[in-house]
Amino acid sequence: MRDVAIIGAGITQFGEHWERSFRDIGIEAGMKAIADADLSGSEVDGMFIGNMSSGRFINQHHIGALIADYSGMATNHVPATRVEAGEASGGIAFRQGVMAVASGMHDIVVVGGAEKMTDVDDPTSNEIMDTTSDTQWESSLGVTFASLHAMIAKRSIHDGVFTREEMASMSVLDHAHGALNPNAQFRKAINLDTVLRSGPVAEPIGLFDCSPISDGAAAVVLCPLEEAKKHTDSYVKVSAVTQASDTLALFQREDITRFCATTAAANKAYRLAGISSSDIDVAEVHDNYTVSGILALQDLGLFERGKAGKAVLEGQANIGGKVAVNTSGGLKARGHPIGATGVAQIVEVVQQLRGAADKRQVAGARYGLAQNVGGTGSAVTVSILEAI
Amino acid sequence: MRDVAIIGAGITQFGEHWERSFRDIGIEAGMKAIADADLSGSEVDGMFIGNMSSGRFINQHHIGALIADYSGMATNHVPATRVEAGEASGGIAFRQGVMAVASGMHDIVVVGGAEKMTDVDDPTSNEIMDTTSDTQWESSLGVTFASLHAMIAKRSIHDGVFTREEMASMSVLDHAHGALNPNAQFRKAINLDTVLRSGPVAEPIGLFDCSPISDGAAAVVLCPLEEAKKHTDSYVKVSAVTQASDTLALFQREDITRFCATTAAANKAYRLAGISSSDIDVAEVHDNYTVSGILALQDLGLFERGKAGKAVLEGQANIGGKVAVNTSGGLKARGHPIGATGVAQIVEVVQQLRGAADKRQVAGARYGLAQNVGGTGSAVTVSILEAI
Repeated sequence: MRDVAIIGAGITQFGEHWERSFRDIGIEAGMKAIADADLSGSEVDGMFIGNMSSGRFINQHHIGALIADYSGMATNHVPATRVEAGEASGGIAFRQGVMAVASGMHDIVVVGGAEKMTDVDDPTSNEIMDTTSDTQWESSLGVTFASLHAMIAKRSIHDGVFTREEMASMSVLDHAHGALNPNAQFRKAINLDTVLRSGPVAEPIGLFDCSPISDGAAAVVLCPLEEAKKHTDSYVKVSAVTQASDTLALFQREDITRFCATTAAANKAYRLAGISSSDIDVAEVHDNYTVSGILALQDLGLFERGKAGKAVLEGQANIGGKVAVNTSGGLKARGHPIGATGVAQIVEVVQQLRGAADKRQVAGARYGLAQNVGGTGSAVTVSILEAI
Repeated sequence: MRDVAIIGAGITQFGEHWERSFRDIGIEAGMKAIADADLSGSEVDGMFIGNMSSGRFINQHHIGALIADYSGMATNHVPATRVEAGEASGGIAFRQGVMAVASGMHDIVVVGGAEKMTDVDDPTSNEIMDTTSDTQWESSLGVTFASLHAMIAKRSIHDGVFTREEMASMSVLDHAHGALNPNAQFRKAINLDTVLRSGPVAEPIGLFDCSPISDGAAAVVLCPLEEAKKHTDSYVKVSAVTQASDTLALFQREDITRFCATTAAANKAYRLAGISSSDIDVAEVHDNYTVSGILALQDLGLFERGKAGKAVLEGQANIGGKVAVNTSGGLKARGHPIGATGVAQIVEVVQQLRGAADKRQVAGARYGLAQNVGGTGSAVTVSILEAI
C-alpha cells in the first residue's frame, strides 16, 4: 500500500449562493485545489465527489460525470465517482480518493465535496434532510433530524454528561473561530446568552445550536507521498483515514449519549497513525448540532467523558487551548453544505498543518484530525493528517 | 497492488416485487453471496453498495449504513459506502470494492447493487430516470432518456451503422437467453416481429427495445487473490476493472453513434488484462435500449463497427456463437433494477467462468467481460474476469 499526500486544497465561500449553480461552485473548488497543487489539470487521472442529495436539491443524479465534464476532464475520459453517506459523504469521498492512490490504480486524484441546498423551497423537508436517519422507523413517523439530536441532548444532560450551558458553548466556540475565517458563512463572534436565548427548534436545541443551510464546495488533490515533493514543498501526509458504521436508527443503540462508530473509527486511526489522541493539535469535528460537537470531543478521546463540555466552556478548545477545535468555524459558523463538509474539514486541517491558516493559525500544529458523521452517528469517518 | 478474486456471488429474482422492501432484497443478495463464499459474515470488513436513487425511489438516503445495519454488520462497525454513477452505479461500486482490496485497506469486501423502483407512482418520471442525463440542458427542456437514445438510434440507422431489424435483434437475443435464466424478469423467447410491432416509445425505439422497470439486488464477495483458495475452489480472478467519463449531455459529442468512454475503458481493460477483444468468451453489455447494446458490441471491439447488428441478427452473439452476449438475458429480459445491474452482470460472468450457469453455460468460457453505462455513455465501467 502506497502512502498518500495532499498537495493541493481549495474551497469556495460558504453561504447562500442564490446566484450560483452547483456546477459553478463545484468547479471553483476543484480548480483552486488544482492550481494550489501547481498542476495544469491534465495530470489528474481520477476524481471522487462527495454529495448527499443532488437528486433532491438540484434534480440531477450522476454528478460524477457532470463534474468531470464541466471541469474539462471528460475529454481525457477521467473517471469520476460520486460517493454518498449522508452528511459523511465528503469524508468518505476523501477516503475513496486515498484508497485509489494507495492501491496504485490512480496517481493524481481530486476529491471534491459539494452541495447546493438553496435551490429548493424547503431543504429541511422530511423528504431530504430527514432521510439520512431511518426513513422507515424514524422520519416517516414524524421524528425530525433535529428532534433525534434533541433526544440525545436531553438524555446527555439528564445523565450529567454535560450541562445546557456547556453544550451551548460549542456554538460560541464555532463563531469565535468563524469570525477569523474569510470563507465562513457567519463571521461574527457571539456570546453564550445568544445561544441560550435563541428560539427553540427541538428542546433543548435552539436555533443557535443548529448548523445552517449552506451552499459551498471544497476540494483537495492527492498523490503518492513519494511523488509529493515533485509538485510542491507544502504537502501534508495522510497518516490514517478510517470509517465505521453503527445502526441507522437511534432507538437500536444501547446508549444514545455516545457515538460508538466515532470511537471505533478514531481508535483505529490513532493506531494506524502511531499516535494517541493527546498528540492531536487541531481537530475539525462534525457539530451539525452543538450536542454532536461535545459528544465528538469525548468519543474521539480529545477530552474525557463528562468533561468535554466544561473544557469548551473554559476555552480549552479555542486556538491556544489544549487542542484547537473547529478553527474553520465548524459546521455552525463555517457552514454545512452537506456533501462539502467532510472535504472542507480536510482543507482546514491541511491549511493548519501547512502554517497557512492566517489569523486562525495554531502555532506548531503537527497532527490534525477530521471527524465527519452521517445520520445520527450511523457512518463516521476519521482522518489524521501530519505536517511534513 | 494486490490482485483480487471473487469468491462468492448472489442474486435475487428480478421483477416487480410489490411485497418486498429495498432492505429485504438488498440483504437477500448479500447473504447469498456470503454463503456462496462459505463465510459466516463476521469476516467481512468492508461493503460497497451501488444504488442510483434510493433518495427518490424509497425516500431514504444513507443506505450504506442501512445495509450495514440490516445485515448485522453495524455491530462490528463495518464501513459501508454507497456509490452512485447513474445506471453505472453497480459497476462502479464493484470497482471501488476491487480498489479497497487491492489497496490493502480491506481484506474481505461485499459489493452489492440494489434498486427498488416500484414503490413510486412513476419511476420513469423526469425527476428520477431522466436525471442521469444533463438536467440543465436536456431533461429540463423536455428531452426524455428514451428520446435521447432514439436520436442515437435514428442517426445510427441513417449512417448505416445498423438497420432497424438488426437493432431489434438485440431484444430477441436477450429474450432467448433470459428464457434460460430462472432469475430473469422475463423468461420467454420472442421473435423479431414482436419487437418491430411493439408500440412506439420514441421512434424508432418501441416498447420491446426498452429495458423494464425492475426491483432486484445482486452481490459478490471479494478477497485478495492469494487468499482465495482458503475460502473456495471456485473463485474467479479480477483481471481488470476500468472506468471512463464522457460529456454528460449528448449534444456535446462529435459523434453520437459511438460511446467513446466505452472504447477508452475497454482498451485500458484489455491492456491491463493482457488480452485482446477476441479473447472474450462471454460478455454482459449494458443494453438499456437495444441501440445501446449494438453500439456496445462495436465500441468494445467484440464485433466490427457496422457489422455488430448483422452479427446479432445472425446469431453470432448467442450461446455457441462467436462470443456469447448477455447470457443472463441482459437488461431487457433479466431486468434492470438500476443500481443492481452492474453487479448482476458480474454475478453472471462469475457463474459462466465457474461453469455454473446451468442451461445457459458457455462451454470452456475463460475470459468474461461486463460493461455498465451511466447516462448516455457519460460514465462507463468495463470489468474483465478470468477463470482460474
